[in-house]
Amino acid sequence: MATNTGTATVDLASLQSALHRTRSLSVALAAPLSDADASVQSMPDASPAKWHLAHTTWFFETFVLANVPGYRPFDDRYGFLFNSYYEAAGPRHARDRRGLLTRPALADVLAWRGHVDDALAAALPGLDADALALVTLGINHEQQHQELLLTDLLDLFAANPLEPAYLPAPPIDAPARARRWESHEGGIVRIGHAGSGFAFDCEGPAHDVLLRPFQLANMLVTNAEWQAFIADGGYTDPRLWLSDGWAWVQRCAITAPLRWQAGTDGWTSMTLAGRQPLAPHAPVTHISHFEADAFAAWAGARLPTEAEWEVAAHGQDAAAGHQLDSAAAVQPTGASDGLFGDCWQWTASAFLPYPGFRPAPGAVGEYNGKFMSGQMVLKGASCATPRGSSRASVRNFFVPHQRWQFTGLRLARDA
Amino acid sequence: MATNTGTATVDLASLQSALHRTRSLSVALAAPLSDADASVQSMPDASPAKWHLAHTTWFFETFVLANVPGYRPFDDRYGFLFNSYYEAAGPRHARDRRGLLTRPALADVLAWRGHVDDALAAALPGLDADALALVTLGINHEQQHQELLLTDLLDLFAANPLEPAYLPAPPIDAPARARRWESHEGGIVRIGHAGSGFAFDCEGPAHDVLLRPFQLANMLVTNAEWQAFIADGGYTDPRLWLSDGWAWVQRCAITAPLRWQAGTDGWTSMTLAGRQPLAPHAPVTHISHFEADAFAAWAGARLPTEAEWEVAAHGQDAAAGHQLDSAAAVQPTGASDGLFGDCWQWTASAFLPYPGFRPAPGAVGEYNGKFMSGQMVLKGASCATPRGSSRASVRNFFVPHQRWQFTGLRLARDA
Amino acid sequence: MATNTGTATVDLASLQSALHRTRSLSVALAAPLSDADASVQSMPDASPAKWHLAHTTWFFETFVLANVPGYRPFDDRYGFLFNSYYEAAGPRHARDRRGLLTRPALADVLAWRGHVDDALAAALPGLDADALALVTLGINHEQQHQELLLTDLLDLFAANPLEPAYLPAPPIDAPARARRWESHEGGIVRIGHAGSGFAFDCEGPAHDVLLRPFQLANMLVTNAEWQAFIADGGYTDPRLWLSDGWAWVQRCAITAPLRWQAGTDGWTSMTLAGRQPLAPHAPVTHISHFEADAFAAWAGARLPTEAEWEVAAHGQDAAAGHQLDSAAAVQPTGASDGLFGDCWQWTASAFLPYPGFRPAPGAVGEYNGKFMSGQMVLKGASCATPRGSSRASVRNFFVPHQRWQFTGLRLARDA
Amino acid sequence: MATNTGTATVDLASLQSALHRTRSLSVALAAPLSDADASVQSMPDASPAKWHLAHTTWFFETFVLANVPGYRPFDDRYGFLFNSYYEAAGPRHARDRRGLLTRPALADVLAWRGHVDDALAAALPGLDADALALVTLGINHEQQHQELLLTDLLDLFAANPLEPAYLPAPPIDAPARARRWESHEGGIVRIGHAGSGFAFDCEGPAHDVLLRPFQLANMLVTNAEWQAFIADGGYTDPRLWLSDGWAWVQRCAITAPLRWQAGTDGWTSMTLAGRQPLAPHAPVTHISHFEADAFAAWAGARLPTEAEWEVAAHGQDAAAGHQLDSAAAVQPTGASDGLFGDCWQWTASAFLPYPGFRPAPGAVGEYNGKFMSGQMVLKGASCATPRGSSRASVRNFFVPHQRWQFTGLRLARDA
Repeated sequence: MATNTGTATVDLASLQSALHRTRSLSVALAAPLSDADASVQSMPDASPAKWHLAHTTWFFETFVLANVPGYRPFDDRYGFLFNSYYEAAGPRHARDRRGLLTRPALADVLAWRGHVDDALAAALPGLDADALALVTLGINHEQQHQELLLTDLLDLFAANPLEPAYLPAPPIDAPARARRWESHEGGIVRIGHAGSGFAFDCEGPAHDVLLRPFQLANMLVTNAEWQAFIADGGYTDPRLWLSDGWAWVQRCAITAPLRWQAGTDGWTSMTLAGRQPLAPHAPVTHISHFEADAFAAWAGARLPTEAEWEVAAHGQDAAAGHQLDSAAAVQPTGASDGLFGDCWQWTASAFLPYPGFRPAPGAVGEYNGKFMSGQMVLKGASCATPRGSSRASVRNFFVPHQRWQFTGLRLARDA
Repeated sequence: MATNTGTATVDLASLQSALHRTRSLSVALAAPLSDADASVQSMPDASPAKWHLAHTTWFFETFVLANVPGYRPFDDRYGFLFNSYYEAAGPRHARDRRGLLTRPALADVLAWRGHVDDALAAALPGLDADALALVTLGINHEQQHQELLLTDLLDLFAANPLEPAYLPAPPIDAPARARRWESHEGGIVRIGHAGSGFAFDCEGPAHDVLLRPFQLANMLVTNAEWQAFIADGGYTDPRLWLSDGWAWVQRCAITAPLRWQAGTDGWTSMTLAGRQPLAPHAPVTHISHFEADAFAAWAGARLPTEAEWEVAAHGQDAAAGHQLDSAAAVQPTGASDGLFGDCWQWTASAFLPYPGFRPAPGAVGEYNGKFMSGQMVLKGASCATPRGSSRASVRNFFVPHQRWQFTGLRLARDA
Repeated sequence: MATNTGTATVDLASLQSALHRTRSLSVALAAPLSDADASVQSMPDASPAKWHLAHTTWFFETFVLANVPGYRPFDDRYGFLFNSYYEAAGPRHARDRRGLLTRPALADVLAWRGHVDDALAAALPGLDADALALVTLGINHEQQHQELLLTDLLDLFAANPLEPAYLPAPPIDAPARARRWESHEGGIVRIGHAGSGFAFDCEGPAHDVLLRPFQLANMLVTNAEWQAFIADGGYTDPRLWLSDGWAWVQRCAITAPLRWQAGTDGWTSMTLAGRQPLAPHAPVTHISHFEADAFAAWAGARLPTEAEWEVAAHGQDAAAGHQLDSAAAVQPTGASDGLFGDCWQWTASAFLPYPGFRPAPGAVGEYNGKFMSGQMVLKGASCATPRGSSRASVRNFFVPHQRWQFTGLRLARDA
Repeated sequence: MATNTGTATVDLASLQSALHRTRSLSVALAAPLSDADASVQSMPDASPAKWHLAHTTWFFETFVLANVPGYRPFDDRYGFLFNSYYEAAGPRHARDRRGLLTRPALADVLAWRGHVDDALAAALPGLDADALALVTLGINHEQQHQELLLTDLLDLFAANPLEPAYLPAPPIDAPARARRWESHEGGIVRIGHAGSGFAFDCEGPAHDVLLRPFQLANMLVTNAEWQAFIADGGYTDPRLWLSDGWAWVQRCAITAPLRWQAGTDGWTSMTLAGRQPLAPHAPVTHISHFEADAFAAWAGARLPTEAEWEVAAHGQDAAAGHQLDSAAAVQPTGASDGLFGDCWQWTASAFLPYPGFRPAPGAVGEYNGKFMSGQMVLKGASCATPRGSSRASVRNFFVPHQRWQFTGLRLARDA
């Protein structure tokens, strides 16, 4: 991790500011939630908001503060409760039972956050480069959990027949746009993270890949296009689907993106602002990799590889998208012109190590390498991604059937 | 239901008083709970406390108030959310998803309770006999759910590694007692409910059965006796077990009653007062029917039939036991001399209709008849049963492997 | 077992003859089967024909011949392979993996049978009364497995899209009959096995029960009546069903008896003679207890208790039914006038021990007692029951959802 | 398919000869099997030998003979029974129920094979280039199933406590060898199938990839090395494992390669010659991708990518390995010097489409493209691969936890 983080260039004041901003945002995101909203787990893949608030705090306490002389843990029992998957950091509460922890209460977890924030602020000036790199990692780690907090909450509220709204939001009013194909010439290109800024371990090493000429769509696939796919029998034609995808469609009776409902007044979808009519020209979201792949086949195109996507994104400002910077009922609006924002975009690439990848030693080294099996890479950022926390080199990843994140697709084709 | 309830003798003032007492007790039981404590479901068999508070309120709103001119439901959407299993009362939220309802909040449900209580108080003087019978049924129904609220809560707290306490309680200090066998002569005896007081549908019709002479123990099996069963290899000898029971022991790796833990200082058990040392002479509880049957085989005895138990209990005051009458961390103490109190007692009888049983017409008729398959009868009452709500004729019932209730056993043998 | 078997009255010549007849019938039943037909297991509840041929042989080898001086087992490894569920007789091959045993081949098992038959014939004159009682038990045990061999085979052939026929059979041509209600006065009656002939352990002890007056139909419910139940929405009205039954109907999408198909020319059913049109006036078969109970509710009647059925059957010749005495494509024909034959009849009684029941000591004592949980009693005999092997006191039992046996129902009602 | 098959160069006499050789080998492989051996399915992933014999015949009948004027199918019902996964070729018997087809018997399937072989021999001279390409595809398809026939049979026999031997075989006596690292310089290299010979669709298009310098071991990992991995706690250290792999190890209690047993005389393994002692210097086999990856991590190395492996294999004779050319109890012997033979070798590459890959139109087009999700590529050939049927460009693929094939590993590392 340390090599990626570029500790030599860490500016303490910037780090303090980023830490404060990130820690505050998490609390702000939870502000509209009741104690129960924050405690319940909607499914094993998701976690309660309280757990996200606690686990990100556990990260700082375990990997940074535990080594600070004189630091007293807030509650010795929390280490067991809020470890996620770090085998080397000891035993932990089972993932699918996170929603049974009605105690500690949300208020207790917020108090713990305050305790840790105070200790971090006090300790920061005295930390060595390795510890500072871990603080940077903790900030980025917490930004990831901020996105999950929102998507997991949406899953919970969608499971409630009352379909409550997290926050009100104005209706989306994206205008129709025509798709353009942006051409790229391929050749030997360099991908992966190389600079002095922060990156997760799996983003490197930077390395050369050989690409054939390709074209990438300038916009995401829209809800209207998806409705055409449905109307054309897209969910009933096995020839469009991967074998595992077709089995999933049959077994789970999939007929539309997650939480879409066909009513007499047209399609609606559950959002963080409650159930809303679908905006036809907004990007489709909450689709699985299987669905993205089938749509691309239906459209006579294909998904881009992660290298194609990354090369196309080079030089773009990842912060330009519609990204989160305060509590809001986020949703994809289709207003973004770049490759970032609105939705994470499924690629044709499996999540595998880059040439020369080595896991970092120690518990933090469990970070991403061990998930390099059975998952597909997504690129970009979504409406729920904290502003400025994505990069062209970021590799998000999920199992092909998962779709509770803000996941969409951008078409590609051979030149 | 009406015939059993003896509406002719209903005294309106008593009914009002009983209604008030019961409705208030439910709220008192929930007083120590946080919003999250009241909202989470520990397993599909259990329900959140908030659900119990809401469902019992739904019962009065649906079966009594819906027919009262001018009554306005508190929220039209609650009917779907809080129906339990009444097919005739319309569709309902899936049982195993009750814990996903973080909204309405506990405070909303308590407000609904107030709304319904007010409407009931206003309507009561004008209700006809059938409606009053339904009020009586609603009171008894709510008393059942008060017990479930406590046992379901214990299951939730036991699933939390912090093992929180619902309320503090003094340690149990039951003295050792010697078991005596009480002899009964058998013959043709009458069982089932016949009098003018309330009874659930399945308690009747009263009818004659032919019994052989038998003996019944004067006390429940104790924790010390159960430890002897364990020490003697009771959980590892298939000859003691029913075939389904042995499969359950193997599949679930059962080695002791639910939530027992063997520590260096002896056995402890999780209780509503948190984890506590086991009192050796207190009654064993949280055992399945399979375990009760195996213990009886090991002890050279058997479980009583429901008729034997009921005949032995005739003339006993059901109110005499250690039963709940306010919020307290209830647990079996072994202080009871009669057949009621401390633990529900597994019998050798399957839960089947009595001769001449007919389900009541209408939605309320779904009450108990449809559960007459695959369950075993338990008699008595437990430490979590509201005082005065049990009878010799009461037939509690659970599936043979269930043991999250306060379930114990009393031995019987042929004379 | 010994007390029931009445060893004092065993006539050696009769026993030899019965043994020969039974052992020969098993081989005759398997004659139309290929090696593969005899080896495959259609579902965990069923066993391959080869396994039935082997397990019944294992019974004699383990419980009789193992104690005969000089007896050499045919193959030491077969004890592990063909034990069914006798914990005390050592470990055993898992029940749901019986179909993986392509070796020993059918021919090997038949050779084993010859070896054991020869040894039994030689040993029989020298056996003591206890051993002779075990031979009698072995004969009756094998008769049970003959019925299972046929029903398990039918299940296997029904799972094959080719729907092969075990043997050809003439079409059934039962005439329409009017149902009559036979009245019985009830009172104190004696049930259970008491005489000197053979009975299984669970049939005793004989004991008195107190019955109310009741009526029993003179005939089984027919296919035509069942079609009326279907046409009237029987499978879609939850009010007719036990709660577990309704859950089973929903979960398994049950809409008719097992293996019924609605075609343009009317209903057909898979039989041991292949797929055949349903004979309207023949008894319905292959129904679960849940279905039987729902039909009775729909018909305004109820299932008889096992005591009612047994009292009504006293004095009837169990051998009078349409029962198996050679290899034939058996099926219910509706030609029987008595209570025996055609179909096993679901009762309203759970399979529980009779008063005073004690399991026999030793491995044979595992016989029936350990199954006394979760099952319902069936009375009578079916078209697949070997002639002369049933009795009024016989208690067959299955789990409420099972229906691959020849199971039907006879209605009862209160007088 | 046609473009890959190079129909221009098809020599009819060679094709006839290859067809005859392949069809005869399948029958020879089945010769030691009983009707039951050939009919039973050991698990959903495996198929009965009879099914392999039938399905490969179905392929020729459906894709070649159905278009030959005057051809009469042997049995119209076989199309439904023996389709594997071709959605476009109509409905089909469920995969996990293939073992229920005791009819048609093995003899019937062999008769069908004769019928189809005769018709193919007669039709061959008159077929056009497209049809001849399908014959070539059918031959290669059948060669794949010959390998599966053996591995599926081994799985069946291993499930039988008798552990029967398919055929006797001499003990393996591989000498110890020292591992050498062969260096490769990387750069832009061409992989994928390009020539005029046959290849499966997924082997193309040929394309350039950019490789870094790497080293590849000259031999497969051996049983002795694997025993060292076990002894060093390889199966108990989560740091060595992918997250999904560790979950699999825990859930399935994996402690060694499939079917290894530790006895007092050392490790044994179940083989096609029955249970045999492990030859220490023979290649380890029956390991999952998870195990291969963990071993490589333990050994301080990694798995090769498919491109690395293929480049290293260029110029090698795929026929040189220890491959099957008649019925024999095949097993890895360690005598091979090249990259082919003994075991399929797990790579670090997910099974994904090559750049420019397009599925072939029509039912045959379902061939491999739809499996490009969730699987990992294996290269080489195994002891059960028919001689001459592999190529450097062949891409075998399985799900990461599967290990009933002859799967092993060859280590790689960065230069």
